[in-house]
Amino acid sequence: MRAVDLIQKKKEGKTHTKEEIDFLIKNYTNGQIEDYQMSAWLMAVCFRGLTDEETAYLTQSFVESGDILDFSNISDCVADKHSTGGVGDKVTLALIPILAQLGIYTAKLSGRGLGFTGGTIDKLEAIPNFRAELTNEEFFNQIKNIKVAISSQSPNLTPADGKIYALRDVTATVDNKSLICASVVSKKIASGANSIVLDVKYGSGAFLKTPKEASELGDLMIKTGKLLNRNIDVVISSMEQPLGFAVGNSLEVIEALEFLKGNYKQDLYEITLELAYKTLLNYNKVKNKDEAKKLFDEVIENGSALNKFKEIISWQGGNIDCIEDYNLFNVGKNKTEIKSPKDGYIKELIALEVAHSAKLLGAGRDKKTDNIDFGAGIILNKKIGDKVSKDDIIMELYYNDVAENKLNDAIEIAKNSFKISDEKTEKAKLIY
Amino acid sequence: MRAVDLIQKKKEGKTHTKEEIDFLIKNYTNGQIEDYQMSAWLMAVCFRGLTDEETAYLTQSFVESGDILDFSNISDCVADKHSTGGVGDKVTLALIPILAQLGIYTAKLSGRGLGFTGGTIDKLEAIPNFRAELTNEEFFNQIKNIKVAISSQSPNLTPADGKIYALRDVTATVDNKSLICASVVSKKIASGANSIVLDVKYGSGAFLKTPKEASELGDLMIKTGKLLNRNIDVVISSMEQPLGFAVGNSLEVIEALEFLKGNYKQDLYEITLELAYKTLLNYNKVKNKDEAKKLFDEVIENGSALNKFKEIISWQGGNIDCIEDYNLFNVGKNKTEIKSPKDGYIKELIALEVAHSAKLLGAGRDKKTDNIDFGAGIILNKKIGDKVSKDDIIMELYYNDVAENKLNDAIEIAKNSFKISDEKTEKAKLIY
Repeated sequence: MRAVDLIQKKKEGKTHTKEEIDFLIKNYTNGQIEDYQMSAWLMAVCFRGLTDEETAYLTQSFVESGDILDFSNISDCVADKHSTGGVGDKVTLALIPILAQLGIYTAKLSGRGLGFTGGTIDKLEAIPNFRAELTNEEFFNQIKNIKVAISSQSPNLTPADGKIYALRDVTATVDNKSLICASVVSKKIASGANSIVLDVKYGSGAFLKTPKEASELGDLMIKTGKLLNRNIDVVISSMEQPLGFAVGNSLEVIEALEFLKGNYKQDLYEITLELAYKTLLNYNKVKNKDEAKKLFDEVIENGSALNKFKEIISWQGGNIDCIEDYNLFNVGKNKTEIKSPKDGYIKELIALEVAHSAKLLGAGRDKKTDNIDFGAGIILNKKIGDKVSKDDIIMELYYNDVAENKLNDAIEIAKNSFKISDEKTEKAKLIY
Repeated sequence: MRAVDLIQKKKEGKTHTKEEIDFLIKNYTNGQIEDYQMSAWLMAVCFRGLTDEETAYLTQSFVESGDILDFSNISDCVADKHSTGGVGDKVTLALIPILAQLGIYTAKLSGRGLGFTGGTIDKLEAIPNFRAELTNEEFFNQIKNIKVAISSQSPNLTPADGKIYALRDVTATVDNKSLICASVVSKKIASGANSIVLDVKYGSGAFLKTPKEASELGDLMIKTGKLLNRNIDVVISSMEQPLGFAVGNSLEVIEALEFLKGNYKQDLYEITLELAYKTLLNYNKVKNKDEAKKLFDEVIENGSALNKFKEIISWQGGNIDCIEDYNLFNVGKNKTEIKSPKDGYIKELIALEVAHSAKLLGAGRDKKTDNIDFGAGIILNKKIGDKVSKDDIIMELYYNDVAENKLNDAIEIAKNSFKISDEKTEKAKLIY
């Protein structure tokens, strides 16, 4: 078998066998196949696509390229949740303690942010002293003891995907649904979960632009799960505007804590409940959404979910006092308010632009090695469909030390991130 | 400008500006753009194509990546001829002395063979002591003195094409007509010619399979010439069966010498005349094909074209005695005859299979560094349309020291390279 022949085969629109996919992935991972051959193959895949079976083979090859976590001596069923990434997405922080409190073992491996995308690990590290890089032993031990742990992904999980993802990023081969599916699903499978709920986002703040694209990806993920004997469910949700009201690391943790204290806003509640419902359904813990809602509301109202979050923070070395004293968080010491230029209704609130502004304030990074400022971010006071009067504060920008030109750009972008309509506008639909 | 954005642009089917093409080629040549980005772009080009203008920009970028030969102080008009490659194609050897004898300055840079394709430089080196690697100074000086020289391509000509061609070869991105056009035409332009005749071949022994593909490539080459102010003309010819009657380096030189002595076979005469005619027309030396044929026949009949070849050999250090004494050539000391299994007519004579057999006998190389045996090759006694009787010799295999398994394979492949039909078959059409 030769790489060039397999590239030619895909270029001609033919279908690979499992052996061919394995050959490509194994030999690329061990350096026998060069980057320039893999990138040519990836581009051919972008044009010709992969069948469902090829996608499953690719996913399996990614899984087998590294370690596979095994929780079978802890529980038969271990849950995981993943979002394809969005702006202000702090759902993991809210959901994970709730699931654990409802008796579901949850082994969560997360990533860091890059570009406009936030990363759960960065958010957690905004909690003073929180250790997000657990050893495998620590990770297993914590799950055994308190049913839940959250850690940054170990480098030994799906190394093939890591190497290929880095290549896709610089060769304009990111946006193929089979490649995205294999990347996401392989990580979840390798991290040992057998019940997986995926939040697939679409809209200006996501890399899939339409609900149709997101549904297609979601369907493929479900099929891939079936072909590989994993229970995968999918929620399709909008990322036209940021999720919730906070964008930026410390601010998002505070919003998640408020959520667990029962002070929630509609959209974050809706999506978190939906993901919890799908997971509970997978575990036969509920029969319908009403039952799920009852359990969900209960652990928030009685404070036990917040307590579970406290337990997680405590086990992972974080300062639990921050739960009651938000002054312990680094929140930007400077604030700039963005006001409405006129009366009307919020018509657009472009997630990508809000993220861009927050990134310029210091909340994001361009390169993996860049530092981020946990205190930088944006609080939204208004969202799509809200009525506003002239000079109402639409959003507040928080920052510490930012170069003047970057700050000016951030303010300018923030000002242009929303549109006010004279006529009444509809609230945006969140779940598709 | 970033490479990844240009890859994305081509992936989306958009058209590059001249600046974008220059950016890609310059930065790839100097190592600023990586192989894996170039290969992704090349694959996107294979799917999306390049416009005529983009093809011309690419050609120009290739030309500008290295030295450009300048003959303006020798003659305003310098001709060149190129074939896209075929089996038994010794046209250059026959044509170049004729053109020079007819007063046309001809600066010919050629390549070596690889795979099934023969190379004119290898053929010339079959002439005892012939020096095919001239310095630039020797090349210019010879053209000034005897109007013609033929040399292997200097490494400083179109280095961008050299680097990209090597990459295309291992990434299944060879078969795009714009990439082929830019590769061929840039080399001809950089080698200083302003009147260029291209022999574009199609059929089983060429990499373009149909006359339609060859015509499209030919049209694009003519357009590219126009856009870059070069006079390019094209002949589309068949490579279903080998050209002429000899395949293999020494054997082909002998066939070319016989041709110049007036002992020619129909197909080699037809294509050589056609290319000479197009060149003479470019130079306004003739008004029609009859006039061209008259001049052409004259320099063969009076021996002056053969004499010009002798002059070339002499200037380039070769042993001119070989012109009269073919024993001075290395011709395989062993011979195996392939006979017709029955009475009938030759229906097929697959060029690629004949080439494959000759290569196994030692006439070709797999890697650039492999040695070839000038004495190895095949003489065809019959061609498509010829009547044969059982046990007539269809072809003769010539070889020196060949491993037994390779020899057996060569014989087997030779036996399967032709088909005999009971019914009368048509002579194959050569020029489209």
